[in-house]
Amino acid sequence: MSEAAKTLDGWYCLHDFRTIDWGTWKMVPAEERTAAIKEFLDLVEKWNKTQADQQGSHALYTIVGQKADFMMMLLRPTMEELNEIETEFNKTKLADFTIPAHSYVSVVELSNYMAKDSDEDPYQNPHVRSRLYPILPKAKHVCFYPMDKRRQGNDNWYMLSMEERRKLMYSHGMIGRQYAGKVKQIISGSVGFDDYEWGVTLFADDVLQFKKLVYEMRFDEVSARYGEFGSFFVGNLLDEEKVGQFLKV
Amino acid sequence: MSEAAKTLDGWYCLHDFRTIDWGTWKMVPAEERTAAIKEFLDLVEKWNKTQADQQGSHALYTIVGQKADFMMMLLRPTMEELNEIETEFNKTKLADFTIPAHSYVSVVELSNYMAKDSDEDPYQNPHVRSRLYPILPKAKHVCFYPMDKRRQGNDNWYMLSMEERRKLMYSHGMIGRQYAGKVKQIISGSVGFDDYEWGVTLFADDVLQFKKLVYEMRFDEVSARYGEFGSFFVGNLLDEEKVGQFLKV
Amino acid sequence: MSEAAKTLDGWYCLHDFRTIDWGTWKMVPAEERTAAIKEFLDLVEKWNKTQADQQGSHALYTIVGQKADFMMMLLRPTMEELNEIETEFNKTKLADFTIPAHSYVSVVELSNYMAKDSDEDPYQNPHVRSRLYPILPKAKHVCFYPMDKRRQGNDNWYMLSMEERRKLMYSHGMIGRQYAGKVKQIISGSVGFDDYEWGVTLFADDVLQFKKLVYEMRFDEVSARYGEFGSFFVGNLLDEEKVGQFLKV
Amino acid sequence: MSEAAKTLDGWYCLHDFRTIDWGTWKMVPAEERTAAIKEFLDLVEKWNKTQADQQGSHALYTIVGQKADFMMMLLRPTMEELNEIETEFNKTKLADFTIPAHSYVSVVELSNYMAKDSDEDPYQNPHVRSRLYPILPKAKHVCFYPMDKRRQGNDNWYMLSMEERRKLMYSHGMIGRQYAGKVKQIISGSVGFDDYEWGVTLFADDVLQFKKLVYEMRFDEVSARYGEFGSFFVGNLLDEEKVGQFLKV
Amino acid sequence: MSEAAKTLDGWYCLHDFRTIDWGTWKMVPAEERTAAIKEFLDLVEKWNKTQADQQGSHALYTIVGQKADFMMMLLRPTMEELNEIETEFNKTKLADFTIPAHSYVSVVELSNYMAKDSDEDPYQNPHVRSRLYPILPKAKHVCFYPMDKRRQGNDNWYMLSMEERRKLMYSHGMIGRQYAGKVKQIISGSVGFDDYEWGVTLFADDVLQFKKLVYEMRFDEVSARYGEFGSFFVGNLLDEEKVGQFLKV
Repeated sequence: MSEAAKTLDGWYCLHDFRTIDWGTWKMVPAEERTAAIKEFLDLVEKWNKTQADQQGSHALYTIVGQKADFMMMLLRPTMEELNEIETEFNKTKLADFTIPAHSYVSVVELSNYMAKDSDEDPYQNPHVRSRLYPILPKAKHVCFYPMDKRRQGNDNWYMLSMEERRKLMYSHGMIGRQYAGKVKQIISGSVGFDDYEWGVTLFADDVLQFKKLVYEMRFDEVSARYGEFGSFFVGNLLDEEKVGQFLKV
Repeated sequence: MSEAAKTLDGWYCLHDFRTIDWGTWKMVPAEERTAAIKEFLDLVEKWNKTQADQQGSHALYTIVGQKADFMMMLLRPTMEELNEIETEFNKTKLADFTIPAHSYVSVVELSNYMAKDSDEDPYQNPHVRSRLYPILPKAKHVCFYPMDKRRQGNDNWYMLSMEERRKLMYSHGMIGRQYAGKVKQIISGSVGFDDYEWGVTLFADDVLQFKKLVYEMRFDEVSARYGEFGSFFVGNLLDEEKVGQFLKV
Repeated sequence: MSEAAKTLDGWYCLHDFRTIDWGTWKMVPAEERTAAIKEFLDLVEKWNKTQADQQGSHALYTIVGQKADFMMMLLRPTMEELNEIETEFNKTKLADFTIPAHSYVSVVELSNYMAKDSDEDPYQNPHVRSRLYPILPKAKHVCFYPMDKRRQGNDNWYMLSMEERRKLMYSHGMIGRQYAGKVKQIISGSVGFDDYEWGVTLFADDVLQFKKLVYEMRFDEVSARYGEFGSFFVGNLLDEEKVGQFLKV
Repeated sequence: MSEAAKTLDGWYCLHDFRTIDWGTWKMVPAEERTAAIKEFLDLVEKWNKTQADQQGSHALYTIVGQKADFMMMLLRPTMEELNEIETEFNKTKLADFTIPAHSYVSVVELSNYMAKDSDEDPYQNPHVRSRLYPILPKAKHVCFYPMDKRRQGNDNWYMLSMEERRKLMYSHGMIGRQYAGKVKQIISGSVGFDDYEWGVTLFADDVLQFKKLVYEMRFDEVSARYGEFGSFFVGNLLDEEKVGQFLKV
Repeated sequence: MSEAAKTLDGWYCLHDFRTIDWGTWKMVPAEERTAAIKEFLDLVEKWNKTQADQQGSHALYTIVGQKADFMMMLLRPTMEELNEIETEFNKTKLADFTIPAHSYVSVVELSNYMAKDSDEDPYQNPHVRSRLYPILPKAKHVCFYPMDKRRQGNDNWYMLSMEERRKLMYSHGMIGRQYAGKVKQIISGSVGFDDYEWGVTLFADDVLQFKKLVYEMRFDEVSARYGEFGSFFVGNLLDEEKVGQFLKV
C-alpha cells in the first residue's frame, strides 16, 4: 500500500445553503418578518462573540442562481457545536421560510505534502494555527465546491507513491501561490464526513479570480488527471447590515 | 503542466429558467394577475433602459417541453447585479406563481486559441468589446446547453499541449463559421461559477440550424472525443407584447 | 474530422407525459370533471382537424407503470406551434389535475446513411414526405425511448468514418426490415433540442414486438457497442371514446 | 452481428411499489379508513378469482426501509390488463393515501440458452407453461431488482458469440440450481418496456438465501464482468388477513 | 468462476434516517409535542428492554448537515421485526413531523477472509457471537456509509482469486487493527437487500478518527482500486435524556 498522507486538522466546518420561500415569506405580517430578522441577527451576533473569542468563525453570503439564496459557513472546535448551531437555526422563525438546499460537513485541513520535517509540534506553530483555526475574511465573493481525487483505471491518485504525489502537489501549489493576495483558499477534509473527500472554499474581492484560478489549475496534472469535482456555488458577501434589505419584501 | 488557455472576460451572465404554476395562477383574481404582469413588464422595462445604456443586456424566451416554461437570460457588468436582479424578480408577484426550474451562472468569454498576437489591449478593440459585452439579438429561437471538456482515460483535453488544442479548436471554429449569419453563438465560461465549464447560448431565426450546427460539430474531434454535454433547452422568443397573451388564462 | 451524416427533417415533435393527481381529481364535483373532460376532447378535436388538413398529427396513449399516466405525442410544422399547444393544454382545467412527468422535444428525421444518390429533391419525393410528415397510426401500443450514439474510449461512433457508419447502419436497418408490418418506427432527431441525440417512437398492435425488435437489435454492433439508451415508456392506445372511461372516478 | 438469444414470453408483469402517507391516513375518520381497506381487499379478492381461473397471478409484500411501504406484483396475459388494474387501484380510496414509489414493467421470460433442441412447440410443454404463467408462491419474503448485461469496453455481453454466452449462462445457472427448493426465481424481460433489460423477482422463506444467492453469483463471470444492477427491494409477505393490522392506526 | 467468500450472518439491521419538519412541529400545541415525545421515548424504552434481553440492539444519533436530522439504527433477529418497528414508528405522532431522508437494510456480517480453519461451529463461538449480535456502544459519534467492491475494467474484485482477495483483505484489516480501541466497526452485508453490497457503521468518541481511518484505508489497494463508496453520514449521540431538549421549540 502507498504511504498515506498525514493531515493536521483544525476547526470543524459546516456549509449550510438555504433557499428562501419568498411566496410564504411575503404572506406573513410585516412585524412577524421584522421579528424573524431580528432573531436571526441576534443569532449572528452570538456567532460574532464566539469569533471575537477565537472560538470559531463564520461567514454569510448570498448565492447567485437557483442553487440557493444564501449560505452560512460555520467553523467550530467540535462536531457537536456545528450540530447545535444547525438545530438552533432550524428552530428560528426565519428558518420556517427557508428550504434546505445543500450542506457540507468537513474539517479544516493541512496536508503534509508541503510540510518540512521539523521536531516542533505543528499545532503550536502560530502560522499553522492561523490556517487551522482561520477567521474567515470579509471578502466580497465566495466560491465553494467539493472534490475527490480520482481512482479510475490508470488515473488512480491513491495508487501513486508518496513521492509522486508530493511532486504533483508541489507544482499544483505553485499555481495557487500566484493567486496569493487575490484569493484566499480554505481546504477542509471530508473523508468519512461527507460525500466528497474535500471541500474547497475560496474568498476574493474580484470574482473573476475564482474562474482564473480554477481554470488554470485544471491544466495541471493533479486536476487534469486526478480531479473529480462536485457542484460549484458562487456568491456575494451578505453583510449583517444588508440582511434587512435582502429580506425586505 | 500544459499551458493554460487565456481568456478575455466580459459581462457576467445568469440564465434563469422558470416553470409556471398554472393551477395556482388561474385561481387568482384577474386584477391580481394583471397587476403581476404589469409589475413584471415594468421590471423588463428597467432592463431595457440598462440595455439602451449599454450597461447590460437580456433576453426572454418561452421554453418548449416540461423543462421550463420561460427563460430570462441576463448580462451585467458584476456578479452583484445578477444577484440583485434575481432577488428582485423573486420578490415580484409573478415569481410567486413560478417554480425555479434551472439556472446557470457564467461570464461571457473569448479564448486565446484563435487570437493573433498583438500589442493592442484587446479590451479596447471594438470588435472584441462587441463580443464580450453583446446586446442579445431578438432572434426567433434560442438554444442553451452547458458543456465540459472531457478528462477521461486517453481522451483528456487538459493533458493536450496548447499546440494540439489550438489546432483542434481551429478546425472546430471553421464549422461554426459556416453558420455565420444563421446562428449567433455566445460562449460563457463557468469554471468556478457553476457545474460545467462553459455555457453555450445559440440564437437563430431557423430553429433547425441549432440541430444542424450541433450535430455537424459532434463529428469533429473536439466534440467527438472531448465534449461532455449537459441538458439542452430550446425555446421561442417571448416578445414583451406577447407576455400578456402567454400568461392569459 | 469525420464526414457528418446529412439529415432530412420533417415535422417538429413533442412527447408530453403526464401523471394524474387522482386524489385531487376525485375531490372535484362531477360536473366540473365532466366540463374538464369535454374541454380536453374539444382540444383533441382541434388536433384532429389539423391532422385531417395534413398540418400535423398526434397520438394519445396511456402509460403502464408509475412513470406517467398518459402521453400526448404531437407533430407540427414549427417549434412555435408545439409551444402553443403545450401552453394551451397547460391552461385547460384537466391540466390542473396533471403533473408533468416527462417530455421530449425533437424533429422527425431521415438520415442519409441509406439514401441513394439522386438529382431529385428528396423533399418532393412522396415516399420521403410520408415519412417526414407522418400521420401517426392508431396502433394498440406505443414504445418511446431516447438514445445517443456512444463516444467512449474505443467505442466512439463519431470518430468512425462515414463508410464504417454506413456499413453498420445498413446491417442495423436489415433487422428493422424484418419487423415491417409489425412495428412502425419514427426516428426523431434531438441534437440541440433535448438531452439525447434521438427519440425513437415505435407503434405496434402486438406489444411483444417492441421487446423482440429492441432486444434483437441490441446484439447488433450499432447498439451493442455504440448505443446508449434513456428511459423506456410503454403504453396502450387511448381512443378518444375511452378518455371518459379512463378519467371516470 | 452476434446471434440474438431467443426468448419464450409469458404473462406481462407489473411491480407497483407504494409509500403510505401515514400522517394523512391518520387524520381520516375510522369508518373511512375501514371502508378504504374493505374496498382494497375487494380488489384483491377479484385478483384472487383471476388467479383461481389461471388468468393471472399476484403477490402482496410489505417492503423494509424507506424505499416503499408495500408492493403489489401483478401478472396478466395482456399489457392492457396491467394498465387497467393500475388505474383501478389509483381510483380506490386507499390509493389517495399512497405515494407512487417505484414501478417496473416486464414480461415473464425464458431464454433459449438452456433449451434443448426439440420439434415440440415449447408453449405446449406443461413445464414451460408453468414457468411462463406462474402462480406466485406465498413465500415469507420477496426480493426484487432490475439488471442489465454490461456493454462497456472489453466487458460487452452483446459482442460475445452465442457459444460464449451459452457457456457462461450454463455455469451461472448451475449456481441457481443449488438454491432449488430454497429460492424461487422469476425472470422477466423488460427490453423495450422499462429502463433495465430484466427484472428479477426472488421468493424465499429464509430471507438470508437472497443474500447468499446473489452474492455467490456475483463471483461468477456473468455477474462479475457483465452484470449491472439497479435498486434492490426486500420485503415480507403481506397476507390479506394482515392488511387490516398493517393499516391500523 | 472465483471461489465466493463465505459469510457468517447475525442480526438484521435497519438504518432509518429522518428529517424533522420543524415548521409544522412548532405549530402544534405544546401538550401535543410533549405527548409525541413521550410516545417516542416509550418506544425507545421498549427497544431498551429488547436490548437488555439480548434480542436486539439500537442506537440514536443526530446527524450533522442537511442529509437528515436524526438516525435510528436497529438490530433484530428477523427481517419481519425490522419491518414492524419501522411501521410502528411510522404510526407514532412524532413520525408525522418527520420526513424519511434515507434508509439502509442489511445484516451484520463476518467474512471468511480472516477466518482460521476450525472444526468448531463458529455460531457457538462467544467472540464470533458478540460480533454477529453486537450491543451497540454509546459512543459519542457515529459514521455510516454504504460501499461496493468495484467491477470495472481491470479493477474487478469479483474476478480476483480467493487467494488474492484474502491477501488484500489481510493488509486492509491490519489498518483497521491500528484503530482498535478508538473506532468500533460494524460491517453489515446488503447484497440482495439494498443498493450497495455493504453498510459500514463506525463508532468513536473522537470524531476525527473516522476521517483518519477512512482516509488511511483509501491508500490501501482494497479501497484505492476496488472501493466504491456511497453517501457518508456523520452524527452525535442522541441520549434519551437529550431527546426532549433536541425537540424543544
